[in-house]
Amino acid sequence: MANDLTAELHLIGERARSAARILALASPKAKNAALLAMAEQLLADASEILAANAIDLENAQKAGLSGAMLDRLRLDEKRLSAMADGIRVAASLPDPVGAILKEWTKENGLAFQKVSVPIGVIGIIYESRPNVTSDAAILCLKAGNAVILRGGSEAIHSNRAISASLQAGTAKAGLPEASIQLVQVTDRVAVRVLCSMEKHLDCIIPRGGKGLIETVSLHARMPVIKHYDGICSIYVDARADLEKARAIIMNAKCQRPGVCNAAETLLLHREIATTFLSGGLRTLLEQGVEVRCDRETLDLIPFSIKASHSSLIKEASEEDYRTEFLALILALKIVGSVDEAIAHIESHGSHHSDAIVTEDAEAARCFQRSVDSATVYWNASTRFTDGSEFGFGCEIGISTDKLHARGPMGLQELTSYKYLISGNGQVR
Amino acid sequence: MANDLTAELHLIGERARSAARILALASPKAKNAALLAMAEQLLADASEILAANAIDLENAQKAGLSGAMLDRLRLDEKRLSAMADGIRVAASLPDPVGAILKEWTKENGLAFQKVSVPIGVIGIIYESRPNVTSDAAILCLKAGNAVILRGGSEAIHSNRAISASLQAGTAKAGLPEASIQLVQVTDRVAVRVLCSMEKHLDCIIPRGGKGLIETVSLHARMPVIKHYDGICSIYVDARADLEKARAIIMNAKCQRPGVCNAAETLLLHREIATTFLSGGLRTLLEQGVEVRCDRETLDLIPFSIKASHSSLIKEASEEDYRTEFLALILALKIVGSVDEAIAHIESHGSHHSDAIVTEDAEAARCFQRSVDSATVYWNASTRFTDGSEFGFGCEIGISTDKLHARGPMGLQELTSYKYLISGNGQVR
Repeated sequence: MANDLTAELHLIGERARSAARILALASPKAKNAALLAMAEQLLADASEILAANAIDLENAQKAGLSGAMLDRLRLDEKRLSAMADGIRVAASLPDPVGAILKEWTKENGLAFQKVSVPIGVIGIIYESRPNVTSDAAILCLKAGNAVILRGGSEAIHSNRAISASLQAGTAKAGLPEASIQLVQVTDRVAVRVLCSMEKHLDCIIPRGGKGLIETVSLHARMPVIKHYDGICSIYVDARADLEKARAIIMNAKCQRPGVCNAAETLLLHREIATTFLSGGLRTLLEQGVEVRCDRETLDLIPFSIKASHSSLIKEASEEDYRTEFLALILALKIVGSVDEAIAHIESHGSHHSDAIVTEDAEAARCFQRSVDSATVYWNASTRFTDGSEFGFGCEIGISTDKLHARGPMGLQELTSYKYLISGNGQVR
Repeated sequence: MANDLTAELHLIGERARSAARILALASPKAKNAALLAMAEQLLADASEILAANAIDLENAQKAGLSGAMLDRLRLDEKRLSAMADGIRVAASLPDPVGAILKEWTKENGLAFQKVSVPIGVIGIIYESRPNVTSDAAILCLKAGNAVILRGGSEAIHSNRAISASLQAGTAKAGLPEASIQLVQVTDRVAVRVLCSMEKHLDCIIPRGGKGLIETVSLHARMPVIKHYDGICSIYVDARADLEKARAIIMNAKCQRPGVCNAAETLLLHREIATTFLSGGLRTLLEQGVEVRCDRETLDLIPFSIKASHSSLIKEASEEDYRTEFLALILALKIVGSVDEAIAHIESHGSHHSDAIVTEDAEAARCFQRSVDSATVYWNASTRFTDGSEFGFGCEIGISTDKLHARGPMGLQELTSYKYLISGNGQVR
């Protein structure tokens, strides 16, 4: 069984490699035609896809999955149509392959060009949401990469139907079917085998919970681009505009608390703490945000606020400052300086997205320079860490790694480069 | 013992992380002053370093290491002075940190800057040559990274003396001593422990034989930038200038056969094969190059050449076309077209450096576009794949990976980036 699986996955790997060679040389026009054909096919196959999704939903209900999980799994006409729209948007984006990133000529007459090329074969290992099947596949294809998809067992019927539809679209447009392949086996062993296939896979992008990310990082022999925690902090400086601070904190904490770029920690400069805790804090509590505070903060919260929101005001544990709540919970702490805020973020944060609110340009520059995170904001919400908010037009994920890609990853991050060097007989 | 080692290495990791925070914010001036102090210290400590090296050499001789290995290990005044010169060159190079790689403003007024930053802590795991201790350390420092060095047991005394000297130089210039740390334990277990320290090490660069590279790739939980094979090919097209071809092949094969960018395979277009085999081939044989040929090639070599160089002309096995000889051996094969040459390189090469010799610009473009290697040459020797030949001024290694860095790696490849986003209160 394990041997059969290995053989099957290696065959998928070989097919992907062959497809990647063709995709790497495909014109932007050919790739975009394939994308449009895929969008069309997806809509044409809507009833099959929704029927397959109904099986997944039924199984999930029997298995007792939570409402939130069921919602992530559920497809309907509207979501399918959003998927198709996403494909059309990808088709309209500039082609990331073949760009001349740099060129120069040496004194010996050798002409150098550094040009963007596809990475090759990318493995995407993900959990429940079936729209990832489409989103990931189309962005890989747009960047000239073949993709091997391995989704979760909960969504296997939906993923099969979606990937079959995408493959049919690709084939109609004359590109290899194996540009997009779904691993049919949802056994955990399949992940281990994929992680060992460094000859066939140039890179793995795991998307899902911590357990999945850790398994892939531990076993993968090829480069992995991953997203761990999003423990994002907002520091309100002594010279902050407290109205801006209130709006930014509200947005970063409440607009969508379950996402990685939501704020989890609020650091208040001692000089503005009393004012903020008598004012801005109330808005947070009124939105149902639970605040976990250090002793000093607790002491400064006015009695009237404590009395009216007693159930939402708690003392923080050290662990609270290292936790990605993904819920309406915020850890509060008072600091004495921008340096103290930076040190706290360095030791407790996850190097994802952090913000300073201040009118003091010098403090902002110091914070932006010193905080070692993928994105560092001055007077803006951490919620902007997102491919489309960056203007990438799309997003394959957010990297908390520092190599190859950091922060939101668009099409460019799905490419590598090579050097073309032209001469007239030069030797060393 | 293993626990002691783990604790010791984790301590080294923590110290490196603290040093990296300081280095990341160090000015170009401070880093360059440290580099110059290191160069000076290295020369001041020459007698201690050479004495330490003498112990390594004596042990190596007792252990029966080969002459080539002894030569790689040996230090003398001249080599030390070359090391110091290398450090001064690094000091003179432009600082790779703090460059604005891109900047743009969105309609909502948010201003984005993508700026280069150090990677953080880099682990270098290498074998015998003690000059790597200095070369790797200074390039990491110049790019604002702390480095953890783990050299081979053969060079441990030399490495200790060199790293102590570099540390003293760093400290004199006011930068943290822990910017450069040498792992004193040369036990293999140390490599395994380093590979598991993803919290302390942002990246590992292994430099050495295949066994080392494979061990690191298999066990590392953090990104690895590596160099596998250099199976480089030269394809002589139907429309090649055969004089250029002869010069390029001679250079790529004979100038320094033991290096990764030397040619290992020569593909000849059928139309020029007879002419080349009657002419250019002779020059190769006269330099003592052994040629391993497919049947067709063997049949075309003139009898007079066969007679005078019988010991150097052999039939090739399939394996010969997949071998990095690193010696005066060249595998020859006749192909019928540029496409056949590309297909051979794709299936047998190592995606390092390959060249086409032709006067046909169309064939050259096709070759450069289709061959999926880090560097693809037109009418030039593969030997140019080298950081200083590229104009980088230095080289930390050559990557055969496709992520983060591909081909020669200079200072820029030792950096990551982050996004600084500035607004005036924007929220989503």
